[in-house]
Amino acid sequence: MPESVNDLLARAAALDAADELSTHRAAFVHVDEVRAYLDGNSLGRPLRRTRESLASFVDEVWATRLIRAWDEGWFDTPTELGDTIGRVALGAATGQTVVADSTTVLIYKLLRAAVDARPGRDEVVLDTDNFPTDRFVAEGVAAERGLTLRWITPGPDGVTPELVHDVVGPRTAVVLLSQVDFRSAQLADLPGITAVAHDAGALAMWDLSHSAGVVPVDLDRHGVDLAVGCTYKYLNGGPGAPAFAYLAARHHDILRQPVQGWMGAADPFAMGDRYEPAPGVRQLVSGTPPVVGMLAMRDMLALLDVAGLDAVRAKSVALTEFAIEVHDALLAPRGVTLASPRDASVRGGHVTLEHDDFSRVVPELWRQGVIPDFRPPRGLRVGLSPLSTSFREVLTGLRAVADEVDA
Amino acid sequence: MPESVNDLLARAAALDAADELSTHRAAFVHVDEVRAYLDGNSLGRPLRRTRESLASFVDEVWATRLIRAWDEGWFDTPTELGDTIGRVALGAATGQTVVADSTTVLIYKLLRAAVDARPGRDEVVLDTDNFPTDRFVAEGVAAERGLTLRWITPGPDGVTPELVHDVVGPRTAVVLLSQVDFRSAQLADLPGITAVAHDAGALAMWDLSHSAGVVPVDLDRHGVDLAVGCTYKYLNGGPGAPAFAYLAARHHDILRQPVQGWMGAADPFAMGDRYEPAPGVRQLVSGTPPVVGMLAMRDMLALLDVAGLDAVRAKSVALTEFAIEVHDALLAPRGVTLASPRDASVRGGHVTLEHDDFSRVVPELWRQGVIPDFRPPRGLRVGLSPLSTSFREVLTGLRAVADEVDA
Repeated sequence: MPESVNDLLARAAALDAADELSTHRAAFVHVDEVRAYLDGNSLGRPLRRTRESLASFVDEVWATRLIRAWDEGWFDTPTELGDTIGRVALGAATGQTVVADSTTVLIYKLLRAAVDARPGRDEVVLDTDNFPTDRFVAEGVAAERGLTLRWITPGPDGVTPELVHDVVGPRTAVVLLSQVDFRSAQLADLPGITAVAHDAGALAMWDLSHSAGVVPVDLDRHGVDLAVGCTYKYLNGGPGAPAFAYLAARHHDILRQPVQGWMGAADPFAMGDRYEPAPGVRQLVSGTPPVVGMLAMRDMLALLDVAGLDAVRAKSVALTEFAIEVHDALLAPRGVTLASPRDASVRGGHVTLEHDDFSRVVPELWRQGVIPDFRPPRGLRVGLSPLSTSFREVLTGLRAVADEVDA
Repeated sequence: MPESVNDLLARAAALDAADELSTHRAAFVHVDEVRAYLDGNSLGRPLRRTRESLASFVDEVWATRLIRAWDEGWFDTPTELGDTIGRVALGAATGQTVVADSTTVLIYKLLRAAVDARPGRDEVVLDTDNFPTDRFVAEGVAAERGLTLRWITPGPDGVTPELVHDVVGPRTAVVLLSQVDFRSAQLADLPGITAVAHDAGALAMWDLSHSAGVVPVDLDRHGVDLAVGCTYKYLNGGPGAPAFAYLAARHHDILRQPVQGWMGAADPFAMGDRYEPAPGVRQLVSGTPPVVGMLAMRDMLALLDVAGLDAVRAKSVALTEFAIEVHDALLAPRGVTLASPRDASVRGGHVTLEHDDFSRVVPELWRQGVIPDFRPPRGLRVGLSPLSTSFREVLTGLRAVADEVDA
């Protein structure tokens, strides 16, 4: 039978008491006005130290070292920070990851590089539930390169290896999918799908925007070819922080991205006559590294490194399990339905609920300092960033949802 | 006859005393270790208020408003900030400028949009002295679109309308040039060259990286079609700050850039099935706006707005005139030569000097806190950001150059 609110309060307290990562919560900025932040999957909270990271950068680095700082480290930020993300979050050995541009621009660059490297193949496989920018970029690339998009319609278990197997073949250049579905949080079988793509001679490209920093990825181990992802969600880089791109080392001498810029050239300051790509993953860089935008994510990467991604994933699972428990007790009786998998092994770091009233409910919750996000037509996403979120906060937020559905 | 050091000190003092903009210098961060900063054309100094702009953003906006801030202003930052740059620095009416991406990525997007809009024309005109990233992008776009690059070799007066006239014709899709040459500081005849391009039925695209914020541009008045530029030079946006792009309103319904992203879509949050570009200049945006990277430039734009671009240009001319005066007195006798125009009306905001020893001299100057930059093979650039640089600082820096050439 459904748990009472008092039972749930006791459950939340017990879970918080047992949470070995709970001390890290104090590392983040919390303001009284925000009673429950349920959208860490869209924009992670800032760490408390980030205020000083940005402030001291202005006076102690930018103002003091001035252009000398380019030689003293800024020039290497795309690969240095990429290596850190690779190690802490992606299971990627050094020399395969860069930080640069937006996720959208990196999807364009990598997808172009991938399809141009498979000249005899004229199809890109993706799914109808993929994030809009992935689909929009693919649509544009297909139009300009004369390719056909092969759309998978996800089933009840999302995009499975079987569904991919049904559409890949000798014409497939690349399979472009998200590891965690931005709406349902369905966690795809990345190793299985990557293997299916490879069996068909295609490249596997993954969007890790909703998994990087919360779900272990193991890119190298699973033989992924290309990947991109966002740093302002579970990597807490701040609004619009630059994205990351991964290109497996075996492709470095073969794949070429189209936006040939001076900062991805072999010798940027030679100011040479012709573009010669830098060796290795550096060629993915085009323009000047967005140094200021890269500062905040360093604080979170340092914390993730201390906490450990496996522990973070374990807490993430516990948080979403508890959110589902609260849903079953308080929200299901009010007609709310769960639109995410019940099986934690195939669920990412968020939970999506559905109800016809959510388009009305969410703006009202925002006014009350309870902040999930709304995904049309009727989805409310509960995104639980493990290091900054308590079980009590989950309960506070979902109780407010119940109250507003009643209102 | 050459002036003595005492004469030059007196001249510098008199010029500083007469400088109506001198009070603004205190708005910037100055540290004792930096005796003379002569590279404001590469990376502008931070303003004193920028430390607090970044710090308070973390706590008061990011941590407090969280994702609600997207609806409260972040979403509009590309066009809102673009409009401000357009008004303060570019002579561009609202609705034609965005801030997004790096200069390199924006050059790619605009150049692709331009050449794709001229299907019967298969040539791009540019010059061999253009900044490497412009040339590298054009080389890549030419290769992928089957275009021919027509190279102008600049004469003693740089790229003139006559030189452009000699190469444009019915095959020219676009003329891509820099308003201010990054090495020589030669100021191109933007109105004259734009008219020559138009007479040939071509589009005129300008890189304003070395002019925006220091040289009046008047894009609308001169009928420029497309422009890009950098915000970390004379707009003091900080290392790697996002760039701006201008697309004249008359092209909004015709030109289409290739990196189709959700933030440039007509309704980003509809998460629609097909990409539909946003109306107006917004379609130039691809990914999530780099909000943190956009903060610092706002402080400088506010100051430029107060000072006025015409006054800034007048001080810029006075600063470079004085640099040349010091060169003539102290450096020419040591074998240094001037590699920038003597005529201020065709000179941008910096002055380039040449000497065989500069590759040795510049690193030593950096150690002393005197910071010009070195441009191979033998150029030393003296970039004088008008609002943060005094005449005395110019003299201090160039005296150090003289001492090091003697060393």
